Amino acid sequence: MLIVGESLNSAIPKVGQAILNHDEAFVSDLARSQVEAGAEMLDVAAGMSGGNEPGDLAWMVRVVQKAVKVPLMIDTTGPGALEKALEIHQGKPIINSISGERKRLENLIPVVTRLSCGVVVLCMDDEGIPKTADKRLQIAHRVVNELIRKGMKPDDLYVDYLIMTVGADWQTAAISLETLSLIRKELPEVHTICGLSNVSFGLPAKSLLNAAFLSMLLGAGMDTFLINVRDKHVMASLRAAAVLVGKDPYCASFLKAYRAGRLKVD
Amino acid sequence: MLIVGESLNSAIPKVGQAILNHDEAFVSDLARSQVEAGAEMLDVAAGMSGGNEPGDLAWMVRVVQKAVKVPLMIDTTGPGALEKALEIHQGKPIINSISGERKRLENLIPVVTRLSCGVVVLCMDDEGIPKTADKRLQIAHRVVNELIRKGMKPDDLYVDYLIMTVGADWQTAAISLETLSLIRKELPEVHTICGLSNVSFGLPAKSLLNAAFLSMLLGAGMDTFLINVRDKHVMASLRAAAVLVGKDPYCASFLKAYRAGRLKVD
Repeated sequence: MLIVGESLNSAIPKVGQAILNHDEAFVSDLARSQVEAGAEMLDVAAGMSGGNEPGDLAWMVRVVQKAVKVPLMIDTTGPGALEKALEIHQGKPIINSISGERKRLENLIPVVTRLSCGVVVLCMDDEGIPKTADKRLQIAHRVVNELIRKGMKPDDLYVDYLIMTVGADWQTAAISLETLSLIRKELPEVHTICGLSNVSFGLPAKSLLNAAFLSMLLGAGMDTFLINVRDKHVMASLRAAAVLVGKDPYCASFLKAYRAGRLKVD
Repeated sequence: MLIVGESLNSAIPKVGQAILNHDEAFVSDLARSQVEAGAEMLDVAAGMSGGNEPGDLAWMVRVVQKAVKVPLMIDTTGPGALEKALEIHQGKPIINSISGERKRLENLIPVVTRLSCGVVVLCMDDEGIPKTADKRLQIAHRVVNELIRKGMKPDDLYVDYLIMTVGADWQTAAISLETLSLIRKELPEVHTICGLSNVSFGLPAKSLLNAAFLSMLLGAGMDTFLINVRDKHVMASLRAAAVLVGKDPYCASFLKAYRAGRLKVD
């Protein structure tokens, strides 16, 4: 199980502004608070209008890894920004993300196969995000096979089966859950990941929805959690769910978190 | 999806005492508060030392169905108590439970096959509760097949794959989850149920564990929930999880519960 903090993302207005301003204190604090809350890796994304992604992302990697000793998930689709960030990055990163889109594959495969890194594989292609679980699985198969042919190990691949908000389409989470089950069955050797907070976008009681979805996804075999680690409800549910799938021997981590007051939900 | 309130159970000391005293106000209030909280059916259990199960159970059925207009889950292993309760019961009950134990089968099959009722089938036999998911599935197969041969419909069967506390065995919930998946795959036409509150017995942060387990089990296909409906965290998680598995069209029930202040978790 790998816990990745989602918050250093330029799509969040306050964070985007801090990146534009190269506000080192803000970014360092957000890095530290996520690691303190339990993140073992941090996602960093710097793409936004008005910014200079290659320069901003490289700055972020430098600042974050000065503040905390964890590897990063480099969140970009630009090969230039990616190469620059990877030159600076310490340790083994995960690149977020490649997909079945022809151009993205052509641009990124030379970069990701040259280095020791993990790669997130999105289940979408040039026609967008398929509506059905079967078609998402087909894309995962195709891209995973291509990366393995190019020398990558299955253990370095993280298939993202894609989460959209149930606020716009009330059946979409069920399709994602079905896709996860298919991937666990058909590609058992790769990891699975998703941006689960998307599920509650635009809805009330977000923590409740995110926490319930997290438990469901862990139960269905997802092993890599890109989440808001500073959301107490979500993190407490992750600790409970880890017990329930038998990943917390003697409930030791759960009981330790309880004694530290970390299982309160409010 | 069927929501069954678990609280009218003589194993809970306060409830047991009220049953011994034939305290009609207490039992009626507990019935009403569960239905108000969302229960569509109520489990009733009267077996305890010092009591007279056939008389107590019949009294409970009468009192509860005077207080609320829902069918009951008659929770007993005694054929005498069962027959008496069934004579009084209004509507279609579910009998909780039969199992692979030879004597229990012989005693209960004539009763349950004579009436229009549902039956809970426990995945255990004369050797106790099997440690492995495969063996629990074998028992489910055997008992379900026997009941179908005797004329019962699969839609009237509720397989209970058995939940024990992770406080005593930290791997036990994972085995139950695996059993659920096997049953959903091998016996897709029957319902699945469990006494999920058992999972947190003896542990702190019970609501958190129960809520996380409920989301996980709904995601894995369980459709009948014997739960503490008066636990706000558990009920709010059930509403969230129902959205996520695509069982709440347009999130209408979820949004209605939110507006009514029913999604607060504390």
